Amino acid sequence: MHTDIRLVGFDGDDTLWRSEDYYHAAQDDFERILQGYVDLHDARTHERLYAVEMRNLALFGYGVKSMTLSMVEAAVEITEARISAADLHRIVELGKALLQHPVELLPGIRSAVEAIGAEHEIVLITKGDLFHQEAKVKQSGLADLFHRIEIVSEKDASTYARVLREFDLSASQFAMIGNSLRSDIAPVLELGGWGIHMPYHVTWAHENEADVAADAPRLRTVATATELPAALRTIAVAALAAS
Amino acid sequence: MHTDIRLVGFDGDDTLWRSEDYYHAAQDDFERILQGYVDLHDARTHERLYAVEMRNLALFGYGVKSMTLSMVEAAVEITEARISAADLHRIVELGKALLQHPVELLPGIRSAVEAIGAEHEIVLITKGDLFHQEAKVKQSGLADLFHRIEIVSEKDASTYARVLREFDLSASQFAMIGNSLRSDIAPVLELGGWGIHMPYHVTWAHENEADVAADAPRLRTVATATELPAALRTIAVAALAAS
Repeated sequence: MHTDIRLVGFDGDDTLWRSEDYYHAAQDDFERILQGYVDLHDARTHERLYAVEMRNLALFGYGVKSMTLSMVEAAVEITEARISAADLHRIVELGKALLQHPVELLPGIRSAVEAIGAEHEIVLITKGDLFHQEAKVKQSGLADLFHRIEIVSEKDASTYARVLREFDLSASQFAMIGNSLRSDIAPVLELGGWGIHMPYHVTWAHENEADVAADAPRLRTVATATELPAALRTIAVAALAAS
Repeated sequence: MHTDIRLVGFDGDDTLWRSEDYYHAAQDDFERILQGYVDLHDARTHERLYAVEMRNLALFGYGVKSMTLSMVEAAVEITEARISAADLHRIVELGKALLQHPVELLPGIRSAVEAIGAEHEIVLITKGDLFHQEAKVKQSGLADLFHRIEIVSEKDASTYARVLREFDLSASQFAMIGNSLRSDIAPVLELGGWGIHMPYHVTWAHENEADVAADAPRLRTVATATELPAALRTIAVAALAAS
């Protein structure tokens, strides 16, 4: 098959495997712990935790350990330091459980990765904690399908530009598949690449902070992984026509 | 200059820049916080913190955020949950301060890196938290001197073997410079490569857990960075003779 798409990137969390569900469950547990100290509604625990996470992002980066430290800090703030050491320890345990959640592939994703990998060079580009992401890649059983695995601290235009430089490709030869408009789609479209957005049923607010028009010309949207190979074929045809 | 050494690796923490000093200072602060709750000597706070860190290593990996979470956990254990939320928050703040410590190059290291970089391809191989290590590399002002920067989760023989594969080199063409026998020297010697050990005045106990004979044939030891270029020349000569 002749195509101008030379490289296809896949995101990890909530594209290949479930992730945000576990974070949500941990946040629910966090609120249950705080319930002993404050009125959850008045305390706006959810917003305040998010505010602490955003404040710490430039210092901590992404990932479970960052979130856990922010939960400890937010719990002290929200309870005005009335929370017990035992309950703060339970919050640390929530983080440890998150780091150990099973890696559960999303429906149809293995076949989609195999089908696309049979026609294109494919790369996994995932952000977050190096140690945890490595463990998840290993447990996913998908590692051998990818030509390369890139674990990065931030998925912005300069990160994608670096990966493309290393493969000696222009952005127009690259398509990225992922659930996050902010991390997977917007920076790739910005560079002149192609994107397939596969929304997940829950998304961290931070990952939706992006300005992408639903009818952007180099963007496709799919509901499930089984639609990915066909969506990529329409991109390959359009890329060829544009080349 | 004709040489069989084709690639030279440098470690980051306590080889290029000060690191362990900051961890030690944070541990002293940690003990000062616990002093309000226990007799420091009886409580063996130092050993118990180390035990918690080792227990969590397989789950957390290396780095400041891992250490901070282990400090919170150890503080709860050591005080039998009597520690206040405000003091646990001070422990989180110790971690945040650690993440912000200035990057201070060790004496003579810039000239040594420049001198070795003028004769060899050089690569920085550092382990720990991706986000923090990236920030330190950026602040060090040394990033442009390196051909490549590898931030890895563990520095064992398989990690070095992967880097060598990517450079298409055999271990006998590689020399690694670092302060840690465990992470920088032992695995490289094991693969058949060369090592220059530059001990730092303080070393985390974990990094000394290695079985390396001081008179190992492919090992050199230097006291300061200014001795590095000459030590590497003796290796280049020996490597050439052995080739």
